[in-house]
Amino acid sequence: MKTFSFKEVELTGGYLFDKQELNRKITINSVYDRFYDTGRIGAFKFDYDPSVEGSVKPHIFWDSDIAKWIEGAAYIIKKHPTPELEEKIDAIVENIKKNQDKNGYFNIYFTVCEPQNRFTDRDKHELYCAGHLMEAAIAYADATGKRDFLDCMERYADHIIKVFVEDKSAAFVTPGHEEIELALVKMYLFTGKKKYLDLAEFFINMRGAVSEPKATFYCQSHKPVREQTEAVGHSVRALYLYTGMALLAAETGDETLVNACRTLWEDTVLRKMYVTGGLGSTYIGEAFTVPFDLSNAEAYTETCAGIALMFFSNAMLRFENNARYADAVERVLYNGVLSGVSLDGKGFFYENPLEINVREKYENRVGRRRLPITQRLSHFFCSCCPPNISRLLPSLGNYVYGADGDTLYVNQFVSSELSGEMTCTQVTNYPNDGEVRLTVGGAKKVAIRIPEWCESFEINKPYEMINGYAVTVNDGSEIVTSFDMTPKAVFADPRIRHDACRICVTRGPIVYCAEAVDNTDFLHTYVLSTEIKAEEAFDEGFGLYTLTVPCKRRLPLENGLYSCRPPKTENATLRLIPYNSFANRGESDMIVWFSASYC
Amino acid sequence: MKTFSFKEVELTGGYLFDKQELNRKITINSVYDRFYDTGRIGAFKFDYDPSVEGSVKPHIFWDSDIAKWIEGAAYIIKKHPTPELEEKIDAIVENIKKNQDKNGYFNIYFTVCEPQNRFTDRDKHELYCAGHLMEAAIAYADATGKRDFLDCMERYADHIIKVFVEDKSAAFVTPGHEEIELALVKMYLFTGKKKYLDLAEFFINMRGAVSEPKATFYCQSHKPVREQTEAVGHSVRALYLYTGMALLAAETGDETLVNACRTLWEDTVLRKMYVTGGLGSTYIGEAFTVPFDLSNAEAYTETCAGIALMFFSNAMLRFENNARYADAVERVLYNGVLSGVSLDGKGFFYENPLEINVREKYENRVGRRRLPITQRLSHFFCSCCPPNISRLLPSLGNYVYGADGDTLYVNQFVSSELSGEMTCTQVTNYPNDGEVRLTVGGAKKVAIRIPEWCESFEINKPYEMINGYAVTVNDGSEIVTSFDMTPKAVFADPRIRHDACRICVTRGPIVYCAEAVDNTDFLHTYVLSTEIKAEEAFDEGFGLYTLTVPCKRRLPLENGLYSCRPPKTENATLRLIPYNSFANRGESDMIVWFSASYC
Repeated sequence: MKTFSFKEVELTGGYLFDKQELNRKITINSVYDRFYDTGRIGAFKFDYDPSVEGSVKPHIFWDSDIAKWIEGAAYIIKKHPTPELEEKIDAIVENIKKNQDKNGYFNIYFTVCEPQNRFTDRDKHELYCAGHLMEAAIAYADATGKRDFLDCMERYADHIIKVFVEDKSAAFVTPGHEEIELALVKMYLFTGKKKYLDLAEFFINMRGAVSEPKATFYCQSHKPVREQTEAVGHSVRALYLYTGMALLAAETGDETLVNACRTLWEDTVLRKMYVTGGLGSTYIGEAFTVPFDLSNAEAYTETCAGIALMFFSNAMLRFENNARYADAVERVLYNGVLSGVSLDGKGFFYENPLEINVREKYENRVGRRRLPITQRLSHFFCSCCPPNISRLLPSLGNYVYGADGDTLYVNQFVSSELSGEMTCTQVTNYPNDGEVRLTVGGAKKVAIRIPEWCESFEINKPYEMINGYAVTVNDGSEIVTSFDMTPKAVFADPRIRHDACRICVTRGPIVYCAEAVDNTDFLHTYVLSTEIKAEEAFDEGFGLYTLTVPCKRRLPLENGLYSCRPPKTENATLRLIPYNSFANRGESDMIVWFSASYC
Repeated sequence: MKTFSFKEVELTGGYLFDKQELNRKITINSVYDRFYDTGRIGAFKFDYDPSVEGSVKPHIFWDSDIAKWIEGAAYIIKKHPTPELEEKIDAIVENIKKNQDKNGYFNIYFTVCEPQNRFTDRDKHELYCAGHLMEAAIAYADATGKRDFLDCMERYADHIIKVFVEDKSAAFVTPGHEEIELALVKMYLFTGKKKYLDLAEFFINMRGAVSEPKATFYCQSHKPVREQTEAVGHSVRALYLYTGMALLAAETGDETLVNACRTLWEDTVLRKMYVTGGLGSTYIGEAFTVPFDLSNAEAYTETCAGIALMFFSNAMLRFENNARYADAVERVLYNGVLSGVSLDGKGFFYENPLEINVREKYENRVGRRRLPITQRLSHFFCSCCPPNISRLLPSLGNYVYGADGDTLYVNQFVSSELSGEMTCTQVTNYPNDGEVRLTVGGAKKVAIRIPEWCESFEINKPYEMINGYAVTVNDGSEIVTSFDMTPKAVFADPRIRHDACRICVTRGPIVYCAEAVDNTDFLHTYVLSTEIKAEEAFDEGFGLYTLTVPCKRRLPLENGLYSCRPPKTENATLRLIPYNSFANRGESDMIVWFSASYC
């Protein structure tokens, strides 16, 4: 299917709309301010001078931080003209124009700090930064009609073609950190210039197919991409590559590439994904490990990897009208991505653990156990996640609708207006309420995604289930779908040892957690029944329901740590909050997977 | 109670006797050979020369490795005159005599490599090595009557008194790695010279009471020992200190020290001990962490810490005739200590994990998850554990009997002869069989430990239960005790999150595990009933019973990793082997704590 762009889709209310507004009013400015404070904005003046006290040395990934921020700001401007944001971007663009090399090269670090080392180390993020700058330039040109930033980036792309394809003068063939591939497809789509598509294809085809430095599975360079079957290595790199492959395949129709994408998507989602949609089990290399290895307390699950899963999954809909891709978007958006930003819009998680045991942050003289941070921060040394959030939220409209022939696909449920040849007015209070009202124009059929979590639903029209969509004939009258939102237990595949004998609790797409701040410490001592009987209460702060669940609590043994008599239990209740809202009330123990009795 | 020494107790058959014989015939020689190969024996020549190719630089803890080996060999010689061992020790002693400093100082590394830095860094193991050398010298003098090694060590001890007590010329006051305290009490007991007891008391009293470098909780120097209430820091250091405190208190009758020992023992055993008796949850600093933090897959549980728990617990019996101390000895000996040596007697674990997931030994370009090794090695860079095993096994008789007034205490069950004023002939096939036959002389009462794991037993005499002992009146006739050895489930305190919803299986004192080599991978998918119905089969190789347990196995989910329907199950059987014998048949997944359904 063709998915509609956020430019054609207006969010009009509800939970995701509120998140989008919070981003527009708070987050986009907060991210800018922290980038300003840390010298990232000033770095575009190219005036770093180590002999001057207070002069801040730029880092190799700073271009990309700012580029993602510009991209997000441009998406906001596209919908809500915002002169203050536009002025900030213009000032940065002036510096880009002023400091771009005559030959088209643009990179702060490798111009200011190591000009002799341009394109000598594939792991130094130059092409990654270039890709993000290209995406920003496209977004800004599209939002404002101002072409100068895009002109700069076209010149840079042309320089890259010369260096990598024509002269082959770089010390490597493909980027160590992928991103530019997907950006180049977007450059092609926006400018119509096929040379950019060709360059994307060059980088994708050469990857793992030629001998070059550091060509390991860590950066998905261990074999040609069409032969890759397992999601491996650095998870954000992996997902950006797979997205680029899918976007390229959508333009070229390359079936072998499509098949590789499908296999990689399945390995990612069916074997290596947390229940929150988070990806990447280990901080060591921010990487995937092996199938079913999903430690909760040590989960890395970088916010950027979650966002990249949305990119990749949405791109897969181009090849296959299968609701599973939109299911993955929903899972990770509502859980592992929105957990990445605080309720006040100013704090961010880079890692999104599924369990916190504060007591275990133990340090002795020799060292400390490596555990994820327990509170969100305003920025990071490597601050990719905050601006990734701030560019995702204004473009949420990208994920809502699609079309194939005369069928309108409704992939996500959010009050919204689709305009264009096909129109749709969607009214819903999802995910708090399961009722979705659709009035569709310009389409003969309407395909409504039935979420994978949903066991019971009703539609006020006849429908046929096709690949996870309920397909109805559109007669212009309102289509009303009701999903049963009763909270329930979710079980993990038994091969995930970390979740053995455990359940988690969901309500619609929302995964719940318990925090010690609402309950007691030792959250593992609560034992839930697999029949969840929850009392629901809407919480203004979270914008979602909280749940109160009757359960049992296992009591400490009386004599020592081990006994041949089972621990006694007492009746208890457990307050659950949406996982995506954890850690908004101070440092606290937290769990997602609860002890349970089932066999 | 007074516990009898191994010199008065002869093991005469059965499981522990076989382990002792394996040590005498194989291990003691194997450890020597590896120490020879690695240059540890040669290092006593003090001829390290960096300019000579192949000359091996000694390490700061090599003296202690050899000392523990000598101590073990001497214990063997005491019972079984063995000229080959005696010759090897004599050769080493010759080098000690030749190379000891005129002032009494003896340390290979700090004589050969850094003579200018003697006693300047409390973390460089000089006093730790000194302590082990003293223990070795005592054992050798006692076994052979040859005093020259002991004379050397007396001169060294006198030098230490001069440096630390009289001149205060060292750069620190107390050792960073404790051990010398317990050794000095033994020096006092063997030589009768009170100055050694005084020095032990000096080191114990100064610890944490004076300002000195690196005085952190990591080496139990954060506060005066009498004020310490939590087992913290490096676990072997901690347990050696506590043993020294207990041995000292037994001589001085210092009640505040006894109380501190009791509190520390309880914190260790009631809050920080694995079901195997292993101690120390983290490799970071080889240390204790916080109560109830007992990860199975990452357990450090150093073999030496287990042995030290035996020392400490046996010493505690001096103050309190409570079976719990002998229970701890039994638990750790049969499980977390014997796991430290292979069935062929030649391989050793330093760490003794309670779970192995071979798949998770995943490495990417950036690094590898830190997990314990999965196969025993012949020696280590820091090879304290192998000679600690080889000195423990010949001295197992230390743990079997005690006396208080006219009562003989039977603390451990092993076919044996106690000789002296009290006599005992013990005949049993424990731990394979629960029947223990005792014929006692010279005691009016016999107190038989009823193990904490035992819920049902019979004695052919009237008895009264006192502090975990069944106390009978001795009329000289055979006392027959029968412990019910039926395999059963053991539950962990629910505050141990790693064992939540799990059980382990025991038979008598033996903790069982399952290895993938006998079953399948994904051992967590097996679900045991809390009513264990095991088929038992004696295994010659293990010297113990194996168990076959009917159970269920949870099957993979059919569509993806998560589902609101519980996984299907099938009937299965699980073969269990004694935990102490894991990893004797190649690298394999292993678990001790099994999924179970209970509430």
